[in-house]
Amino acid sequence: MKNFNEYFLMGTADVTNYVKEHVEIFKDAQNISCDEIGDGNLNYVYRVVNMDTNESVIVKQAGTTARISDEFVLSTTRNKIETEALQLQYELAPGLVPKILILDETMSCCVMEDLSHLTIMRTAMTEFETFPLFAEHITDFLVNTLVRTSDVVMPHKEKKALVQSYINSELCEISEDLVFTEPFHNNFNRNEITPGNEAFVQTLLYDNKPLHLEVAKLKFKFMNHSQALLHGDLHTGSVFIDQNETKVIDPEFAFFGPMGYDIGNVMANLIFAWARGNAMDEQEFTNWTEHTLMDVIELFTEKFHKTWDTYATELTANNQEFKEAYLSDVLKDTAGMAGLELARRIVGLAKVKDITTIESIEKRLQAERICLQVANELILHPENFASGESYIVALQNARLEESK
Amino acid sequence: MKNFNEYFLMGTADVTNYVKEHVEIFKDAQNISCDEIGDGNLNYVYRVVNMDTNESVIVKQAGTTARISDEFVLSTTRNKIETEALQLQYELAPGLVPKILILDETMSCCVMEDLSHLTIMRTAMTEFETFPLFAEHITDFLVNTLVRTSDVVMPHKEKKALVQSYINSELCEISEDLVFTEPFHNNFNRNEITPGNEAFVQTLLYDNKPLHLEVAKLKFKFMNHSQALLHGDLHTGSVFIDQNETKVIDPEFAFFGPMGYDIGNVMANLIFAWARGNAMDEQEFTNWTEHTLMDVIELFTEKFHKTWDTYATELTANNQEFKEAYLSDVLKDTAGMAGLELARRIVGLAKVKDITTIESIEKRLQAERICLQVANELILHPENFASGESYIVALQNARLEESK
Repeated sequence: MKNFNEYFLMGTADVTNYVKEHVEIFKDAQNISCDEIGDGNLNYVYRVVNMDTNESVIVKQAGTTARISDEFVLSTTRNKIETEALQLQYELAPGLVPKILILDETMSCCVMEDLSHLTIMRTAMTEFETFPLFAEHITDFLVNTLVRTSDVVMPHKEKKALVQSYINSELCEISEDLVFTEPFHNNFNRNEITPGNEAFVQTLLYDNKPLHLEVAKLKFKFMNHSQALLHGDLHTGSVFIDQNETKVIDPEFAFFGPMGYDIGNVMANLIFAWARGNAMDEQEFTNWTEHTLMDVIELFTEKFHKTWDTYATELTANNQEFKEAYLSDVLKDTAGMAGLELARRIVGLAKVKDITTIESIEKRLQAERICLQVANELILHPENFASGESYIVALQNARLEESK
Repeated sequence: MKNFNEYFLMGTADVTNYVKEHVEIFKDAQNISCDEIGDGNLNYVYRVVNMDTNESVIVKQAGTTARISDEFVLSTTRNKIETEALQLQYELAPGLVPKILILDETMSCCVMEDLSHLTIMRTAMTEFETFPLFAEHITDFLVNTLVRTSDVVMPHKEKKALVQSYINSELCEISEDLVFTEPFHNNFNRNEITPGNEAFVQTLLYDNKPLHLEVAKLKFKFMNHSQALLHGDLHTGSVFIDQNETKVIDPEFAFFGPMGYDIGNVMANLIFAWARGNAMDEQEFTNWTEHTLMDVIELFTEKFHKTWDTYATELTANNQEFKEAYLSDVLKDTAGMAGLELARRIVGLAKVKDITTIESIEKRLQAERICLQVANELILHPENFASGESYIVALQNARLEESK
């Protein structure tokens, strides 16, 4: 039996031994089942069950390359960033992330609460399941993890110490390439355009000079605006959910960046769900996504004010006009970043099931064009998206344009 | 004799022993002179001369509190940041900073090239000395140290590693308080207003709501915009100079922040020199400061384009409109930050000799009001300051306003 004093990539047998050695509830277990259940792009995830008691945990380990592609060689220290982010988010937004039991820096793994009773939100949404509490929960998560790790709330020296420990250059580089660069240039062979939409993408993304200018600004904002501790990859595949609970997982891309990146990712991924509902004529589901899109912006705005007023320690935060200007900047970033996520998931390396599983090729191409049209609006005119309603208007306009 | 294996605050005898032990040219010295020559706010600076050979070095050590006030308790690791910044700046802008001979992290000291043949620029300017090469030299320094440590030029992972190692929370906090907060509120007892200007300051700084909004935005830009490695305290007391050479010293406030903070500090401190020349009717000197103010902006702009075009590695840097937008943002920050430096040096804790040594109290009060009036313009309308000439117009308007 291998020991765990030096890093190696574990298999199921190793993980079984690992929990026996490290986790109280497995100490005397006679029957342990262990399955690799990871479907993300980067890591290995094991569900381990004590079959005697039916208690279970999740073990997540970082490998030395990304699962999605060997091109991404990654330091395994990212597991530490992810686990510490979860611990901090657990403090700030209790109940909205899994509880961490063990952080093991040597093995680059962590042991956490098993959330298998919940479903991945994107998967459930492909079956048109709706989640009436999602907007409420996710805005709680966003406001508490973002505003409360900013200089508005945190003592500035403590915040700078966090900025320092969450420098996450390898994972940020992935986003800088896949989100902010490749989708807008036709000389990257990782782009994949659905046959039929080539000309549309050429015009709207590759040859669109004004768009490139705004994308460049957003890329530098992503790299240089150390506003708050982001989740960094807050799409609907990073959310476990049912009718009562919402748990945000997988913050391995965590770093200090612009709040709008997280909020924009939530919005964009809800727009994919909307586009799917729309393509498949699921009116009730589509209505729910529209309400949810509106609620995310409206509830975020409402809670932003409350959180600011309750927790601010920074002297200038007393200035009401400054609070408004700050929020307006966050919402502008939200729109731009949502546009980027929409664009990169349609043409870039990492696609979303909401769109790829639309069976009718005609409907899929149409859904893609609608998403890209909305992306274009969001990136070029982010100042127009200060309300939830403005998103719906943009969606409806893009749909109308397509039906002409 | 004490050893140097553990930090203690050295006196002249200790420093003499230190150089004998550590610096080649003092090994066999029979006659060494050692004088404390520091006049900065934070550290202890010794000039050590081998009287046999007339060779000399500077030893600079960080104490555990600031010299200016025991209120500032500081980690001595700031000496490491300062010395490493000088080493990096020496690579990027050779000839424009002193050469480092030794970095001693244990003793929190460094040994560097002696620049005593040069004069502190502020001191020389109080005697109306002019420096025709200053604008050329300082813009070389600014462009090379700023643009070449940004994401435009540096590979992003290397740049993030530098951001991490230059987190400088204690020194940044001093600026956050003294530059961005206290000068705008009358409830800080560290402010000192020259008697006679109380009402003016009350109206222009303390009761000026629109100004407070812009100051808050600039404060957050200072804290959250990790654009480039700043000197962090680039006033004319941090410049050694003569008719041929310019050497920038004392980058202990170095951190990754907005480029405009450094450029704005240069501009503001030239404006103080201008205000002195103006108050004392030194026409020739005043003319030189005006030309220099214009040249700093114009030469920076010219060299910014060249440096960008020569060194950029970031793909989006090919976008000419992005380059223009980036520069325009830097110049806007420059104006705002210059306004902040003007304001805080007139009403805040750390004053400047250019103004405090104007003997006529009437002329001094007038010079202060002119500086504050210009500060107000710069902070409220930074977008109007995209050219060197625009600064001169603002100075002339403020002077005219005062002479009414």
